[in-house]
Amino acid sequence: MYSHISDYRVRYADVDQMGYMYYGNYPRLYEIGRVEALRALGVRYRDLEESGVWMPVYENNSRYIRPAQYDELLEINCKLETLPGTRIIFTSEIRNEEKALIHVGRTTLVFLDSTTRKIIPCPGIILKKLQPHFACETG
Amino acid sequence: MYSHISDYRVRYADVDQMGYMYYGNYPRLYEIGRVEALRALGVRYRDLEESGVWMPVYENNSRYIRPAQYDELLEINCKLETLPGTRIIFTSEIRNEEKALIHVGRTTLVFLDSTTRKIIPCPGIILKKLQPHFACETG
Amino acid sequence: MYSHISDYRVRYADVDQMGYMYYGNYPRLYEIGRVEALRALGVRYRDLEESGVWMPVYENNSRYIRPAQYDELLEINCKLETLPGTRIIFTSEIRNEEKALIHVGRTTLVFLDSTTRKIIPCPGIILKKLQPHFACETG
Amino acid sequence: MYSHISDYRVRYADVDQMGYMYYGNYPRLYEIGRVEALRALGVRYRDLEESGVWMPVYENNSRYIRPAQYDELLEINCKLETLPGTRIIFTSEIRNEEKALIHVGRTTLVFLDSTTRKIIPCPGIILKKLQPHFACETG
Repeated sequence: MYSHISDYRVRYADVDQMGYMYYGNYPRLYEIGRVEALRALGVRYRDLEESGVWMPVYENNSRYIRPAQYDELLEINCKLETLPGTRIIFTSEIRNEEKALIHVGRTTLVFLDSTTRKIIPCPGIILKKLQPHFACETG
Repeated sequence: MYSHISDYRVRYADVDQMGYMYYGNYPRLYEIGRVEALRALGVRYRDLEESGVWMPVYENNSRYIRPAQYDELLEINCKLETLPGTRIIFTSEIRNEEKALIHVGRTTLVFLDSTTRKIIPCPGIILKKLQPHFACETG
Repeated sequence: MYSHISDYRVRYADVDQMGYMYYGNYPRLYEIGRVEALRALGVRYRDLEESGVWMPVYENNSRYIRPAQYDELLEINCKLETLPGTRIIFTSEIRNEEKALIHVGRTTLVFLDSTTRKIIPCPGIILKKLQPHFACETG
Repeated sequence: MYSHISDYRVRYADVDQMGYMYYGNYPRLYEIGRVEALRALGVRYRDLEESGVWMPVYENNSRYIRPAQYDELLEINCKLETLPGTRIIFTSEIRNEEKALIHVGRTTLVFLDSTTRKIIPCPGIILKKLQPHFACETG
């Protein structure tokens, strides 16, 4: 398994009139989590795009456990639990300042050739960087 | 079953550099769909809030079938397939200008007393307005 | 002068914990106002883009007179007070349900050739459609 | 004068189909700049709110000099050039990774008593923390 933690400060822009982060702002946090998880691995999403790979979202599931509040410094723990094939699945566990789990997102993306817009397998560069993190599982 | 159709024009604000509506903007469309579905029924969410009822989101599942593109006039078909109890489940089917199904969202919300922040059953006003739409199923 | 009125319903997504529309959401309303003003004139911004013209924003001034609140149906009155040259200036007057002026935005955009990214004069199609609305001023 | 620098990574959520940060996202950056500038001074906006002070925006002017692009790490230099009275004016200078000035925002906010919703003078806590940064000017 590979995982990486990013921080996110809840902004006034994010919060609704209940005083909670608006439910539609969590996907922005998942994006930050997975892009920073890839960057920490040595893969920049902007380089993938420039090399002709797009990663549109295919499916997303969100569980809202407790609200996030204005100005809280959240922790986004982004996990890759399986090696990607034609899909890549990121799990985002979000904790508040008391380290309580407040939200879980599970986002499935596919790899597209940005010219043909056809689905392609996971680029070798991602697999190469991920394999050491999954090595122990294979013996 | 009760359902209601709303329109949504995709704005420049919504679209990312793939030329697709950003995946995190769909929850805004579900919100429009369910608020307008309730309004068409005679229930204004702002009145519910003023009477002390909040409806935070508990769970959301999204399936991205095809991208929505800039300036497309989308159709949001918001469906209630079961009568709410302590939860209410809205299904949002989104179609593009060619009436192709491009996205499905399924959003579960709970009812909270905004003072105690405790879960309460579905307010009578919603049930009363919904019951005629579900009557045929019981007889 | 040319002007056009669009409606905008304030959404939960737009409102902050003061119960006011977040100050950063007004540019979305100006966008709606000017795109619909052009559409009413017979010019679709998406067609301009496809023909190789971009209209990035050069300057924006916003005056916040009174807050907009959740679920209000606002009126965006988008005005063009002068014929565009290399710049086009849209004034957005926003009124609430009581028709009180609550906000004024003034947005200056330029025209770019999307290939060279150089500034170009206002496309002929826009000028042609606008001229009848400015004719009286010239005699 | 008092100034403080914050970083902001441009996200996919922020970028439009020109590949530029959407013009309406800059106010979020100004917000980050001024809230972090106050925090660095020892004043948390969330504490101000809890003590009954709101700071709604009264006016905003934005100059778009060059576009910000996806994944760039921007620098937000938030400046207070005068001591606040009933208004506080923040200037946000935004630079890209090459340290080129790409954007300037100037945001005027007022102080409100959140109960009466009347304008009040700048809270003493802000003035007290700012005064040392302005002392040299008065002598």
